[in-house]
Amino acid sequence: MPLTNSCAASRSESRHRFLPALLGALLVAGALPAATQPLMPLPAEIQVSTGRLEVTRDFKVALSGAADPRLQENLVRLLRRAEERTGLSFGRQHDATYVAGTAANAALVVECGAASAALPALGEDESYHLEVTPTRAVLRAPTTLGVLRGYETFLQLLQSDAQGWFLPAAVIDDRPRFPWRGLMIDVCRHWQPMEVIKRNLDGMALVKLNVLHLHLTEDQGFRIESKTHPQLHQLGSDGHYFTQDQIREIIAYAAARGIRVVPEFDIPGHATSWVTSHPELGSAPGPYHIERKWGIFDPVLDPTNEKVYRVLADFLGEMATLFPDPYLHIGGDENNGVQWSASAHIQEFIKKHDLKDNAGLHAYFNGRVNKILQQHGKKLVGWDEILHPDLPAGSVVHSWRGPEGLADATKLGFATILSNGYYIDLMHPAVDHYLNDPVPADTPLSATQQKLVLGGEATMWAEWVTPETIDSRIWPRTAAIAERLWSPRDVRDVADMYRRLAIVGQRLEETGLQHASYLEPALRRLAGDSASPGDLALLRQFVDSVEPVKVYRRGQQQPDANQFTPLTGLVDCARADSEPARTFAANVDAYLVDFSEEKKGAVAVQLMQWRGLSMNLSSGLFARAPRLAEARPVLQSLDDAARVAGEAIGVIRSQQVPSADWMKSQLAILDQAAAAHAAVELTFIPSAKLLVAAAAEQGKRASLSPAAWRNHLEALVAPPPAPAKSAH
Amino acid sequence: MPLTNSCAASRSESRHRFLPALLGALLVAGALPAATQPLMPLPAEIQVSTGRLEVTRDFKVALSGAADPRLQENLVRLLRRAEERTGLSFGRQHDATYVAGTAANAALVVECGAASAALPALGEDESYHLEVTPTRAVLRAPTTLGVLRGYETFLQLLQSDAQGWFLPAAVIDDRPRFPWRGLMIDVCRHWQPMEVIKRNLDGMALVKLNVLHLHLTEDQGFRIESKTHPQLHQLGSDGHYFTQDQIREIIAYAAARGIRVVPEFDIPGHATSWVTSHPELGSAPGPYHIERKWGIFDPVLDPTNEKVYRVLADFLGEMATLFPDPYLHIGGDENNGVQWSASAHIQEFIKKHDLKDNAGLHAYFNGRVNKILQQHGKKLVGWDEILHPDLPAGSVVHSWRGPEGLADATKLGFATILSNGYYIDLMHPAVDHYLNDPVPADTPLSATQQKLVLGGEATMWAEWVTPETIDSRIWPRTAAIAERLWSPRDVRDVADMYRRLAIVGQRLEETGLQHASYLEPALRRLAGDSASPGDLALLRQFVDSVEPVKVYRRGQQQPDANQFTPLTGLVDCARADSEPARTFAANVDAYLVDFSEEKKGAVAVQLMQWRGLSMNLSSGLFARAPRLAEARPVLQSLDDAARVAGEAIGVIRSQQVPSADWMKSQLAILDQAAAAHAAVELTFIPSAKLLVAAAAEQGKRASLSPAAWRNHLEALVAPPPAPAKSAH
Repeated sequence: MPLTNSCAASRSESRHRFLPALLGALLVAGALPAATQPLMPLPAEIQVSTGRLEVTRDFKVALSGAADPRLQENLVRLLRRAEERTGLSFGRQHDATYVAGTAANAALVVECGAASAALPALGEDESYHLEVTPTRAVLRAPTTLGVLRGYETFLQLLQSDAQGWFLPAAVIDDRPRFPWRGLMIDVCRHWQPMEVIKRNLDGMALVKLNVLHLHLTEDQGFRIESKTHPQLHQLGSDGHYFTQDQIREIIAYAAARGIRVVPEFDIPGHATSWVTSHPELGSAPGPYHIERKWGIFDPVLDPTNEKVYRVLADFLGEMATLFPDPYLHIGGDENNGVQWSASAHIQEFIKKHDLKDNAGLHAYFNGRVNKILQQHGKKLVGWDEILHPDLPAGSVVHSWRGPEGLADATKLGFATILSNGYYIDLMHPAVDHYLNDPVPADTPLSATQQKLVLGGEATMWAEWVTPETIDSRIWPRTAAIAERLWSPRDVRDVADMYRRLAIVGQRLEETGLQHASYLEPALRRLAGDSASPGDLALLRQFVDSVEPVKVYRRGQQQPDANQFTPLTGLVDCARADSEPARTFAANVDAYLVDFSEEKKGAVAVQLMQWRGLSMNLSSGLFARAPRLAEARPVLQSLDDAARVAGEAIGVIRSQQVPSADWMKSQLAILDQAAAAHAAVELTFIPSAKLLVAAAAEQGKRASLSPAAWRNHLEALVAPPPAPAKSAH
Repeated sequence: MPLTNSCAASRSESRHRFLPALLGALLVAGALPAATQPLMPLPAEIQVSTGRLEVTRDFKVALSGAADPRLQENLVRLLRRAEERTGLSFGRQHDATYVAGTAANAALVVECGAASAALPALGEDESYHLEVTPTRAVLRAPTTLGVLRGYETFLQLLQSDAQGWFLPAAVIDDRPRFPWRGLMIDVCRHWQPMEVIKRNLDGMALVKLNVLHLHLTEDQGFRIESKTHPQLHQLGSDGHYFTQDQIREIIAYAAARGIRVVPEFDIPGHATSWVTSHPELGSAPGPYHIERKWGIFDPVLDPTNEKVYRVLADFLGEMATLFPDPYLHIGGDENNGVQWSASAHIQEFIKKHDLKDNAGLHAYFNGRVNKILQQHGKKLVGWDEILHPDLPAGSVVHSWRGPEGLADATKLGFATILSNGYYIDLMHPAVDHYLNDPVPADTPLSATQQKLVLGGEATMWAEWVTPETIDSRIWPRTAAIAERLWSPRDVRDVADMYRRLAIVGQRLEETGLQHASYLEPALRRLAGDSASPGDLALLRQFVDSVEPVKVYRRGQQQPDANQFTPLTGLVDCARADSEPARTFAANVDAYLVDFSEEKKGAVAVQLMQWRGLSMNLSSGLFARAPRLAEARPVLQSLDDAARVAGEAIGVIRSQQVPSADWMKSQLAILDQAAAAHAAVELTFIPSAKLLVAAAAEQGKRASLSPAAWRNHLEALVAPPPAPAKSAH
């Protein structure tokens, strides 16, 4: 499901382009209380008190209330993580469980009201109350699920200073804002095995996400074992699929962490892997092969063929049993209609059944599929395109194309979840996702409609990820989305989010995720055997300063790429949210306000670092390593942009107004430096442009208010209107 | 099987202590031809010619000769690894296989004489001939197995320069020196799941090891599913064991890479996990619990109890079917005899059956076990202790206690494999293992005895490793052992081995091993959230400069440790073979020859770095991070030792002979700095001592030959005789 809608893409673009200004505005917001330093998502309510609860090797926990073995199982995992972080060894018994605390000696007392059902359910109570005092912590929750959420908060609060390990005293009352907080993983475009799923479930639990949406069938792969029609996975997967036993293992692993698993079988389009083994189900004659490229393809199931429904009844029947969650996702997106329009018998069918058009046929198909689901007590979930007056009541619309999707669906009374704005595969910075609120303060939705917004899902489409890189595309940005979906709407201090994101990113790696640790070996491989430690340190600085291209531009940069292309290049080492670029933008924003020498320092230092980096690498590693040859233009751009920005500072400092052409020519150099090469780009260019504009217009600063001055500069460097985008 | 023999320990100690001198001597050996730069193990014969075979995206392979699907399967893995390293995409077909080359366009032509049997067998032909010319490479082998070995050599030869990717022209004729080249992994002390085994099998294949020895039962865990006596694994493993399906998966994975799997079930001692579920099989009344600490424990099976043999017949019967290899390891080590000696009925039995003593009873037990194995066509393998005149013919003795083991076993006509000297868990540097030859040039073994030496195994005992750290304890050092067992005896240039080890270490990470990449997140966790990138860089330099304590001293440093102790400390980040310490030793050796200013430079720079490191860390990160508090004395030692060494250089430079007491007091400081703390130690102290001795005795240098001068210095700093070691 690529986000091909050009409006969405260009809106996202423009939001990104003005990120520096946005950040500048938000950076001035006050810091939050110390106890919240390491928390993400922030709790609904927190009261900070004084003192701290010390954590030593004598730390013990007393469980009370409902008898649910999951309390103990999760406690063992919790304490193990605490031990690994602190190096402390808490006491164990013969059977490997931790020595239980008593009312007298427990440092953490857990009181669980009632055991949750075996499987987590939509809307279940996840609230908890956590009170930390210098003598003990008390975690109280009405359900097992609430205790699990509180455990994670407890562990996030655990921190250290020179005196040792402790939790700051605080009273927390917490509950989620939305009941459906998901991560979708596409295991089709590139196969993602068990360990990827498991470590991501651990990460999800840490940030209180509660739905794993598995995208299991696609043009590029049929990734689930079917016992009724085994050729589906046998011929459609290159041998890479989940067995039903593995799915049961995933569901149990998720349930143990309070996470639901919702499967998706994408029909009737995105169906090349279906018709690879069963061409007779297609709307045009085969033969078909598993699709290896990316995009929207023609193969689509034939809704006029009764055999299609017989196979779906078998297959969805077994899937309905395998996946116990009441919701089942049938995709339904991006059916381009080519095969349907070209087929005489299908068009005949549309006429005969008075279905009007292909959309009507799609609705007919959904109705038939829904009957199958109803027989198994399942509710249908589908992407935007399933919305149609004939969509069965009780279905859930999953909005990917834009916020209109939410409005349209809820207007018709359908529940809905949002993924537009949460497309983490598109490489936007965390702030874009963070500020994307399903129900913003100025929402056009009525109160009734708002109640139908269940939440949202981050979507990890897998065209450009492997098991090695996928974590770095999901994390840590998905933690910001988790906060958006859990925390109150008014929690939106971007600078504080980024500060906490760095900490939670480290916590996420402690659970086994590899979003940071994958980088070092990847850089060594990229640099080759001749690279010295010094070369590698420089390469890392370079990689930290670039970002992968956004939206769908990677496909334009690498048009020959397909499922077999090795994803071990520079772009796979680059990550969204370049920290040097982000810091530079904030420093430039601060400097532009008053041109003070003091604020100039940080800006100038970064520019000198970039120029030195460029000089060292261009005559060194980049001249030797064949894998870096394609990135030489980016290195040149880095040098050009840093030089131009440095010159602008010089002009400001000298207070000499440059010639009229100067700004134009300097901005032209920066436009060129902004061009992507090797599928990476420099994201600090807008800030460099602001410096140039400020240098050229410096005479006006004193006469304008800070806001007007800023607006003036932004207008001068506003990007030309984006060219029309072709569908991907 | 801890190596508790104190002779072995102290020999190993002294070898280590004089490593710098050894290295100095070997560093002067000439470099090998360019084509061998990245090869490990070095081939039996290599002739380097001129020119190079370019590797581009048009690279194709033609398979000919025997039709064996493994040639294609391994080729797909080979080319995938090449793609990931080079970033090139070779052509693929619809079915995901690579486009096959023809005689006209193939850059690699593979000719396989005959398909190997489905499972690799001891002594199978592994030879191959690889000829690389500027127009093509030809890989010819009599067996599938030989092709697999040749594939790895081909991939090791693939390298790059500024012009691109290529293989240097060369003619290689290669075959192994020993047929049994193994890695033993203990999955009992700390559980090691599937992914650890699989990635290590990939690493083994890369360096041509061909036996995975799985140590499956121990005092601390029963790690294999038994269908005949399921309580064995159910009550003996905390739920951490391989299912029989998983074992089949491991065997298939290994066989696909030309690797045999030999299981070990350690009996009659090391048997606490057996008697945890079946106390009636023990030699003393229970109850028993899984052992959580390390050492030698009393629980031992009762050889006088017929039920023991009935259970063993069941269990070994099912294992004999599960593991198809003809060899089955029954352990047999470290039965301390305590329970046997204390049991009246057992001593009675010994008398009645004229077995003389506990050793006789052990031999009786082995005879009974061997009968069971014989019924299943298995040959018995056991550790040294099974050697007894009554040991059944055809058994294999696995020597761990010393080279005498090989001599004793082969004298009695038994085949033997060597692990003494290959105990990689003991943290010795690679050179110790590398120079440990099963049949050295001065071997006391007769020609007949030599033929009985099948090879050796690196042994990864798991008291101190987790899935996170285990790779860093196995690799890259095990590649040096692989070379010892594969390459000709006269391949023993230590400096060249270390140079190639760095490259093969990188190749090993490309297969998915994590011996280097585990470090960065581990250091971040250790340093805590307050650590800046600068702090982390300093911490890394510090960790690179220390080593874990050797032999069994970690147990002395951490006497409270057990199976539950978190292994996330400084010592777990430290690795054997500190590169700065090794380089420093080589630089000191060079400097001591002539005191030249030029050679002084590298020595002095390192000392200044260490002092700066110590200064920055002691007032910075080490003062803040609670997990580093225990290592403050090591930081102080680093500073002290670097200061003393620097003063010695100053004395040499000033040509002023110091007072008589000076050397004594300086060496005393260094002795103190050599003390271990937090289970880590500084290994450059012997070089610092040589500097002090050289400063004190500088007047004598001119009058002595370089060798005599060196010997004089070494005698002055010789360590005091090692104190007697108590058994562990």
